[in-house]
Amino acid sequence: MGWYRRTMDGELEVIRRITSRAGMRAGVRVGIGDDAAVLDDGTVLALDMVVDGIHVRRATHSPGDIGHSALAVNISDIAAMGAVPVAALVGLGLPPDVGADEVDAIYEGIEALAARVGMSIVGGDVSASPVLSLSVSIVGRMSDGISPVLRSGGRAGDILVMTGPLGASAAGLMILEDPARGQGISECDDLVNAHLRPTPLVADGLHLAEAGARAMLDISDGLLLDADRLARASGLRAEIDLDAVPRAPGVDHVARAAGLDPWVVAATGGEDYQLLAAIPATTGLEPHLTAVGRLVTGSPGVVALRDGADVTPARLGWEHLGS
Amino acid sequence: MGWYRRTMDGELEVIRRITSRAGMRAGVRVGIGDDAAVLDDGTVLALDMVVDGIHVRRATHSPGDIGHSALAVNISDIAAMGAVPVAALVGLGLPPDVGADEVDAIYEGIEALAARVGMSIVGGDVSASPVLSLSVSIVGRMSDGISPVLRSGGRAGDILVMTGPLGASAAGLMILEDPARGQGISECDDLVNAHLRPTPLVADGLHLAEAGARAMLDISDGLLLDADRLARASGLRAEIDLDAVPRAPGVDHVARAAGLDPWVVAATGGEDYQLLAAIPATTGLEPHLTAVGRLVTGSPGVVALRDGADVTPARLGWEHLGS
Repeated sequence: MGWYRRTMDGELEVIRRITSRAGMRAGVRVGIGDDAAVLDDGTVLALDMVVDGIHVRRATHSPGDIGHSALAVNISDIAAMGAVPVAALVGLGLPPDVGADEVDAIYEGIEALAARVGMSIVGGDVSASPVLSLSVSIVGRMSDGISPVLRSGGRAGDILVMTGPLGASAAGLMILEDPARGQGISECDDLVNAHLRPTPLVADGLHLAEAGARAMLDISDGLLLDADRLARASGLRAEIDLDAVPRAPGVDHVARAAGLDPWVVAATGGEDYQLLAAIPATTGLEPHLTAVGRLVTGSPGVVALRDGADVTPARLGWEHLGS
Repeated sequence: MGWYRRTMDGELEVIRRITSRAGMRAGVRVGIGDDAAVLDDGTVLALDMVVDGIHVRRATHSPGDIGHSALAVNISDIAAMGAVPVAALVGLGLPPDVGADEVDAIYEGIEALAARVGMSIVGGDVSASPVLSLSVSIVGRMSDGISPVLRSGGRAGDILVMTGPLGASAAGLMILEDPARGQGISECDDLVNAHLRPTPLVADGLHLAEAGARAMLDISDGLLLDADRLARASGLRAEIDLDAVPRAPGVDHVARAAGLDPWVVAATGGEDYQLLAAIPATTGLEPHLTAVGRLVTGSPGVVALRDGADVTPARLGWEHLGS
């Protein structure tokens, strides 16, 4: 298993079933279908699971890495709304072979990240389980005067911008799977660390919301798959200029060592947790943002372009259900 | 496995480790250790997991029962604070042998209960998993003018009251394990239903909070174990008069058919989700409440009394970790 595992319709289909069934009652502003839900009072809610063997691997991730990752992916969902994380709950499924030291280290990883972003772990549950799993749910708040940035707010003509380079997490995983791929480059540790301890971008998300981003999400499952989601939610077509997508230092070397095209790694790799936002074309592009495409009218979805030619792959990214 | 499975220190020990590590930062009013956490703005948060083979059994629980139960235990945690449920997120761990129809039925069970209490399912996550598991987190609100009722607010001299009879869920499980135990009584279906589709008591919790309850929790793991928790959180001793504890109709018959003492089933059975509250002795006892004991000074913990004699069992109830 890895970043290149095949995309399955499974997860999307299950979510479609759930969405069609859920009734929205009093107090809910944004329900199922975005990075997070939003209640009428500005409470922002998300839940993401991390399961050993699916999202993390005890063979390569330390217990602290697993704890960090489980919270980081949830913080990233809050950041993608332009909100600030406040509190989280942790549901821990604990197999018999995970000892007390390992549990401690998992929570040290969670707590260190919580402290870093100024949020609190306020509760949770523990259950026996055949596999190590963490189900974290998180509560955030919209800052005063800021509206949640949904996936669906993009307009034709908006520029698509990214907060940073892609491919680091995928390259880090490729090095973990075969260390020879990282030989001869100085970025080896950075790439592995990007995979094991991803950094959620709370300040960037807040800044984009303040700057008037119309649509936003975090790139968890690959740029193309997530751009496709944003575009479909907005009822538009996203054109991504692959030549414009920045790749993290060292990614090209590792991709080639693994026999892969660097742009494929960057565009479909996932788990970098950079933010992708649609901003009005009239908004000046700040130096830390990179324009990677645009929203246009047309059949909803994503188109990947290289030198102007459509090179959209059949599989846009990866999902976590199935094998 | 069943209600009489042996109590383990495991779950409590894990929770102690987590509690000792969690830092409370801005915005948190009540952190780890109660039925739910409370943020400064009155947002109430809880998370409870339901795992096949531990809390539910696909052999006896229909998919709808499993969905219902997973949400019900969370609603009960909100009710135990005197709060009202607003929204929930569902993390679904899905093994390969659970088909689309079963997923649909799980969500029908969840959605039907959500509709009944007027709350919304606003998101979640789905992951492949070796075992069917649901990790539900729930958000509630304190009503205006009502303070959250913690476990720790009890005072010496307070009366301990319960919202209804105990033992129905345990007796229902005993019937599912051996249908002969339910023969000859008319309450058979009610008892099985109490086990498969427990009813969280939102109105009762709100009413007790309005009436000035000083401490409260829901009886999830057995009256004695939960009374012990309330007493220790309040730094007091809980005396429970077992002769005063009401048992659901049919429980005595089923318990005897299983070779068990009915009071043991009622006092240690768990999963009835009745509420246990400490109210001032000067508060009049409303007809739907039953006084089952009192809080007194002394070494913190619970004492079970029969005819005034201490009959506290070594194992107070059951926890979900271990086997």
